[in-house]
Amino acid sequence: MENYKKMVANLQEVDDIIKAVQVLQWDRETNMPRAGSIERTHQVSTLRKIAHEKGTSAEFTDTLGAAAQDVADLDADSDEVRLVALIQRLHGRQSKLTTEIVQRLAQAEGAATSAWIKARADNDFESFRPYLETNVELARETAELYGYENELYDALLRGYEYGISAAEVRTIFDAVKAEIVPLLQAIIEKGRPIDDSVLYQPFAVEKQEQFAREMATAVGYDFSRGHLGEVVHPFMTNFSQNDVRITTRWYPEFLSSGLFSVLHEAGHALYEQGTHPNFSRTPLASGTSLGIHESQSRSIENLVGRSRPFWERHYPQLQATFPDQLGSTSVDDFYRAINKVQPSFIRVEADELTYNFHIILRFELEQALLSGDLAVKNLPAAWAEKMQSLVGVTPDTDSNGCLQDVHWTRPSAFGYFPTYALGGYYGAQFMEAMTEQDPTIADQLSTGDPSGMVNWLRENIHTPGSKFPPGELVIRATGRPLSHEPFVRYAKKKFGAIYEL
Amino acid sequence: MENYKKMVANLQEVDDIIKAVQVLQWDRETNMPRAGSIERTHQVSTLRKIAHEKGTSAEFTDTLGAAAQDVADLDADSDEVRLVALIQRLHGRQSKLTTEIVQRLAQAEGAATSAWIKARADNDFESFRPYLETNVELARETAELYGYENELYDALLRGYEYGISAAEVRTIFDAVKAEIVPLLQAIIEKGRPIDDSVLYQPFAVEKQEQFAREMATAVGYDFSRGHLGEVVHPFMTNFSQNDVRITTRWYPEFLSSGLFSVLHEAGHALYEQGTHPNFSRTPLASGTSLGIHESQSRSIENLVGRSRPFWERHYPQLQATFPDQLGSTSVDDFYRAINKVQPSFIRVEADELTYNFHIILRFELEQALLSGDLAVKNLPAAWAEKMQSLVGVTPDTDSNGCLQDVHWTRPSAFGYFPTYALGGYYGAQFMEAMTEQDPTIADQLSTGDPSGMVNWLRENIHTPGSKFPPGELVIRATGRPLSHEPFVRYAKKKFGAIYEL
Repeated sequence: MENYKKMVANLQEVDDIIKAVQVLQWDRETNMPRAGSIERTHQVSTLRKIAHEKGTSAEFTDTLGAAAQDVADLDADSDEVRLVALIQRLHGRQSKLTTEIVQRLAQAEGAATSAWIKARADNDFESFRPYLETNVELARETAELYGYENELYDALLRGYEYGISAAEVRTIFDAVKAEIVPLLQAIIEKGRPIDDSVLYQPFAVEKQEQFAREMATAVGYDFSRGHLGEVVHPFMTNFSQNDVRITTRWYPEFLSSGLFSVLHEAGHALYEQGTHPNFSRTPLASGTSLGIHESQSRSIENLVGRSRPFWERHYPQLQATFPDQLGSTSVDDFYRAINKVQPSFIRVEADELTYNFHIILRFELEQALLSGDLAVKNLPAAWAEKMQSLVGVTPDTDSNGCLQDVHWTRPSAFGYFPTYALGGYYGAQFMEAMTEQDPTIADQLSTGDPSGMVNWLRENIHTPGSKFPPGELVIRATGRPLSHEPFVRYAKKKFGAIYEL
Repeated sequence: MENYKKMVANLQEVDDIIKAVQVLQWDRETNMPRAGSIERTHQVSTLRKIAHEKGTSAEFTDTLGAAAQDVADLDADSDEVRLVALIQRLHGRQSKLTTEIVQRLAQAEGAATSAWIKARADNDFESFRPYLETNVELARETAELYGYENELYDALLRGYEYGISAAEVRTIFDAVKAEIVPLLQAIIEKGRPIDDSVLYQPFAVEKQEQFAREMATAVGYDFSRGHLGEVVHPFMTNFSQNDVRITTRWYPEFLSSGLFSVLHEAGHALYEQGTHPNFSRTPLASGTSLGIHESQSRSIENLVGRSRPFWERHYPQLQATFPDQLGSTSVDDFYRAINKVQPSFIRVEADELTYNFHIILRFELEQALLSGDLAVKNLPAAWAEKMQSLVGVTPDTDSNGCLQDVHWTRPSAFGYFPTYALGGYYGAQFMEAMTEQDPTIADQLSTGDPSGMVNWLRENIHTPGSKFPPGELVIRATGRPLSHEPFVRYAKKKFGAIYEL
């Protein structure tokens, strides 16, 4: 196993470098003065270049080949065989990129990020346009380098959700649309209206934070291996299994945003805190795909955090925290308020139903940008039009429209968006499977206690890390391939009840 | 200039990696959950190894040689010639270390840091002892690799204060002792006593922070290229000239510590914010030695921050911030309180006079540890004895004795301590020189306005960065080599007046 060990040692070094990059990125969002941006971009760019060189060098390529020989006789499901297979896949992909383009990607990202922050603040799409044009061009260029059989978009999607094609995503999205559009229509036309004004009152930020920390702990986030920071755009990041950080933003006069983004990021964090300790410093020690990752965050945020039993359990504590604001609101009214369905501009604030259309919009626009059917300069108009037809509203500004997401500042992030919606479908499928497999999980959930659910997720989803590709993982865990049906069943049942349809 | 450019490109990459390490270290002290320590040590160790490889590779050695040819005909004071000379010096030193020992140093530091944090909290020297033994051994080993003519200590000191020997330091320290011991004696025996209890009252931390931020701004620290964080052990660090961070710790019932450590670190930060922008991402863009660095921090903290005119200017604002605590205390009494001379256990809280003896103690103990005259296991006793004979007090615990400083967690930090005291002497010498050269500086200072002084420092000390070694810099700036005499003159005058001797 000499070569296998040598391969692991190399992977560990590359992992150290990538984790350092993640620290640099986390720091950029949380603490860095804006003036430090140019040098930070150089630092990230240099480290990425080195990681790429180490991960694709001729020497490593030889080592990897020899390591595959080393493990040839081991069990096909052993960690060793699976690690080699994963590395062969990642290495094959990485090797398609030159060091030169890796650096160009990092530089473009750094420049676009600074431009985007300013453009969004100033509602000035034109100032961001040249950067986005560069990024679209770079995304196209990398997709061509990666190669694809049918659609260019597949080459990018594959980096985030291995094993699923753009055509398959389209099929799922069409099916979801066919079911959710009538549901939405029914809610708007026949549903009992929801007043969520109770969520829009002064809520002292320190108290919000204290309560959110307790809820994150309640769903299983381990603060002794974590950290909660404040940012403009919440995210989770990890520098090892023992340092998994969540971030949020607080609104002093709106309760839901801070609280539910903490639960959302805590869901991501459970995954990274829960991978097998033996996988430390290798690519096995991380979520296997963005879709599976998002299933964890959306499950904790929505299936737990926006469930009625969870609030039956925790609402008295929330009322005690904010007696003036919530003292005279019933748990039922609170539960309905946090689940209000309302077409709106901002993806990350969207309800569970309209969220799907925010994603479908981005999926379609990305394809149009990459194919050239849509010129970047026409993006604001196309965005507005699609928002109207899909979600039913037209954004008031580009900042609340096509400038709202950070993703397009990264040329490598094209192909990322669909995984957000897939996460919702994976999550509902996991939930159906676990409650079928173990009825006590459902019993516990009905008292607002997610511990059985989290244990199931830990065993079936978290512990394996990246050992199994997403398609295989979902079959291992649930017995069937990904389907949108559990989500549709869940959505109809939950929102049918809330809106008394 | 092809080779020179190639050399610079390599230096920039190495600088990116070193700055990334500094971010990782900053984050370790400010935000990292303790559980993340092991992987963080791996990350730092891997990056240091890569930086070392890139800085000492055969290819870079050739490039450096060729770059020296490129610049052979340029002016001896040009940036290019000076950069090549600096790199030749650093490269010569770095090349003495193998990559293997660089990694062992990083691993030993990571392990010792965690052990020290615990040992200090538990007042348990024995648990730290084996790590310190390893570090002493490693310091000795690296000193032997570096090589030296006279004393082993020279090899280590040279890394922090190029151009000065342990013997020269000893001569300076003896001269300081000969002058400051009688001054101290006179203060204790004949001085008008100072009551500093006004500093020990409840001071709300947010207000302390707000005021300290304003004082840091008043001495020239640029927050748009900075950041103030909270740590156990204050320090300054920088990731570029545009991201220079200071840290402090706040005591809710003691005013001086937070305030003066902010001014101290702001002094360091002025230096790093003030290097020439052209030097960005090269070793020219940083302080030329630790002694010169400390001259900047001690000048801002003491020559400005503990001066009477500074408080005549700012004390009304401080009183307005804390009316209940300071409303009935005169500026004179406040000025005397913050300058109280009092033998005590903790170096970083020591007054300007006894501080010297804290350093002399460490300088002597380091030499004894390295020579083997003092076994690590006997360090606590030796520390206590020397504190009594030099400072006049015996520490109550090891946590307040030989465990108080972070330095010995780093095998590479032996040789560092003397520079703290030298900084005080450099600083006083700069002050004498600048007020001789430009009387308006003294006039401004007499109104509590340090802007002329900071301009002089920027021009003579900060802008050149590491272009000139410390010995040359001090002659260029003041016309003479380092002397302890200006410091002694300053100390006698200031404390003679305060204590009415």
